[in-house]
Amino acid sequence: MSTALERGRTLAATLNPNLEKTLADRYDQAVPDFAETLIEHAYGRIYAREGLDLKTRQLITIGALTALGGQTAPQLKINIQHAQAQGASKTEIYETIMQMSLYGGLPAAINALNTANEYFADSEMAEPQA
Amino acid sequence: MSTALERGRTLAATLNPNLEKTLADRYDQAVPDFAETLIEHAYGRIYAREGLDLKTRQLITIGALTALGGQTAPQLKINIQHAQAQGASKTEIYETIMQMSLYGGLPAAINALNTANEYFADSEMAEPQA
Amino acid sequence: MSTALERGRTLAATLNPNLEKTLADRYDQAVPDFAETLIEHAYGRIYAREGLDLKTRQLITIGALTALGGQTAPQLKINIQHAQAQGASKTEIYETIMQMSLYGGLPAAINALNTANEYFADSEMAEPQA
Amino acid sequence: MSTALERGRTLAATLNPNLEKTLADRYDQAVPDFAETLIEHAYGRIYAREGLDLKTRQLITIGALTALGGQTAPQLKINIQHAQAQGASKTEIYETIMQMSLYGGLPAAINALNTANEYFADSEMAEPQA
Amino acid sequence: MSTALERGRTLAATLNPNLEKTLADRYDQAVPDFAETLIEHAYGRIYAREGLDLKTRQLITIGALTALGGQTAPQLKINIQHAQAQGASKTEIYETIMQMSLYGGLPAAINALNTANEYFADSEMAEPQA
Amino acid sequence: MSTALERGRTLAATLNPNLEKTLADRYDQAVPDFAETLIEHAYGRIYAREGLDLKTRQLITIGALTALGGQTAPQLKINIQHAQAQGASKTEIYETIMQMSLYGGLPAAINALNTANEYFADSEMAEPQA
Repeated sequence: MSTALERGRTLAATLNPNLEKTLADRYDQAVPDFAETLIEHAYGRIYAREGLDLKTRQLITIGALTALGGQTAPQLKINIQHAQAQGASKTEIYETIMQMSLYGGLPAAINALNTANEYFADSEMAEPQA
Repeated sequence: MSTALERGRTLAATLNPNLEKTLADRYDQAVPDFAETLIEHAYGRIYAREGLDLKTRQLITIGALTALGGQTAPQLKINIQHAQAQGASKTEIYETIMQMSLYGGLPAAINALNTANEYFADSEMAEPQA
Repeated sequence: MSTALERGRTLAATLNPNLEKTLADRYDQAVPDFAETLIEHAYGRIYAREGLDLKTRQLITIGALTALGGQTAPQLKINIQHAQAQGASKTEIYETIMQMSLYGGLPAAINALNTANEYFADSEMAEPQA
Repeated sequence: MSTALERGRTLAATLNPNLEKTLADRYDQAVPDFAETLIEHAYGRIYAREGLDLKTRQLITIGALTALGGQTAPQLKINIQHAQAQGASKTEIYETIMQMSLYGGLPAAINALNTANEYFADSEMAEPQA
Repeated sequence: MSTALERGRTLAATLNPNLEKTLADRYDQAVPDFAETLIEHAYGRIYAREGLDLKTRQLITIGALTALGGQTAPQLKINIQHAQAQGASKTEIYETIMQMSLYGGLPAAINALNTANEYFADSEMAEPQA
Repeated sequence: MSTALERGRTLAATLNPNLEKTLADRYDQAVPDFAETLIEHAYGRIYAREGLDLKTRQLITIGALTALGGQTAPQLKINIQHAQAQGASKTEIYETIMQMSLYGGLPAAINALNTANEYFADSEMAEPQA
């Protein structure tokens, strides 16, 4: 097993313990080794790099997904969850999206605000009421 | 004078004291009020917002410019300078760019690495040798 | 209150009297001042500029939203309504979209034609039958 | 009738005998001659060109639609069908999509994998069980 | 000869009498019939359509090229010239570009302003001083 | 050493024996392990996959780089060379680019034709005259 794959698995588990299995169930039949490839490369070779903390990395990803336009909604939701798992606040997430109106245009930012609103509405409904 | 414009001028001055004048000289004849509009909106209404520190904001911008592709090289250089003015290290800037290979594709990341290499080579040549 | 904000409010009211309130209800809790920022900048600083009539401005926006791809459908519908409020005909709107196949590609144009078909079907259903 | 239009009709009929009629029913009322224009240009002037076989052309189209992002899902489904009509295997189609993660980014590739999964699930359900 | 090709040639000649020949010299050896295909489709099938005047069509194209980002500079220059040939003023052209900052982002608009500045500086230098 | 890295090195060597060294010289100081990461992932995990021949893979990449717009010129030249190394003809490469006018728009295709013309002019000048 490659070291990059091991590093990727360790890191991915801190974000979402089911990530590799979810990906494998969804994509590995059509694209053999899809989940392993993604975990090794995205988490083992990129997110696991030194020199930038994981919370900042996740906010940068949210910014990029926003700037690329509304078609990345599913990935935006997953990375909002990962940003929260690294300690990013709701405010930091929304501020990241709002700033992107300057670079990806207003429609891209509004699409991402809608996705974030939807994500937080769903996740807050799922939480137990104390 | 609008409060947003005042806030924008104060913030822009901390990044580059000549920013508004440079923009005005270049664009205001063809597009009246271009510089004022940009300073008011981008710096007074977006970067001056609370809830996210300026260094993180600048790294997010570098990420977005990278993900949008190689045609943003002039803006990337300006924002690398602004990121350094907010305390971002060379490593944090390069790590931000490298991470974007996952979202904007490898060619976008490589184009931005080339731009950053060029920026740092130029800025290091311009520094006095102690 | 800034002059740009006043100009923006006046102009936005001619396109859709509820625009600022709708935006505020949807986004201001998560992103304080979102509606005010958008009205001030997009309408007060951009659409209110001299030198180009509002009907042409709205057709240009429809063209850009089409060229940027199908992910801008919600914004496309709003701007089709704004174009009609400025006197653009259904034909001018469809011709703008069709032309964009040259610049944003055929899929982008077809996605926008689908959005326009949907918009006009909905808005014609909502009209009273004389 | 133009020769390009004739060539386009002949070629389109081999991919999907109803293509021109489907397009005409959907778009010609709002955009006169839409279907004829598309058949003449896309099929008569581009796909009918010599020098590259149709199966490879269809895989290249699937790659481009993937790289352009998830907003092209409707066109991706149509071109997956056309690729199969030219003899492309399911594996070749999925491999084309997977490769695009390098150029359009991982989110673009994942969106296209989801679209392909949906397309094949639907088309396999529609097939008679022997 | 197809009617669409004839219409395209007539229209293209009003914008730039050398357009087809320039395109043929540059591209037809590698891509046979490139110039004819472009003239027939872009000018004969799209710009020659009824329902939208040519000056507005050219401004919409300038908007789309701006929104798509700085990599379209060569096409932007050609279409600025075509817009002027249809009676668009320098102000209308710059206003179109400025508006696109809302949809394609500020970097895209600034890149296009730089291209327009360059175009007008070159074309004014080329004019005889009366 | 990971198996994916070994597979990547073997495959990359067939396209360009100096690829890893060139990348390492250019990028590894600023981004440690850049060259190894790219070789492992792009060549070891993607291009080395079964189910699609390398010549078709390279044409698909040329198509995607074209559709993504003119800012990918450096990567386009490298992949034109790799396509030729896998047996693709000049005609197949130009046909791939031309087809992309339908999906990435005419400006994207024209930018890529210019890049290909430049690449072939340079590479033919570099060849010994027999």
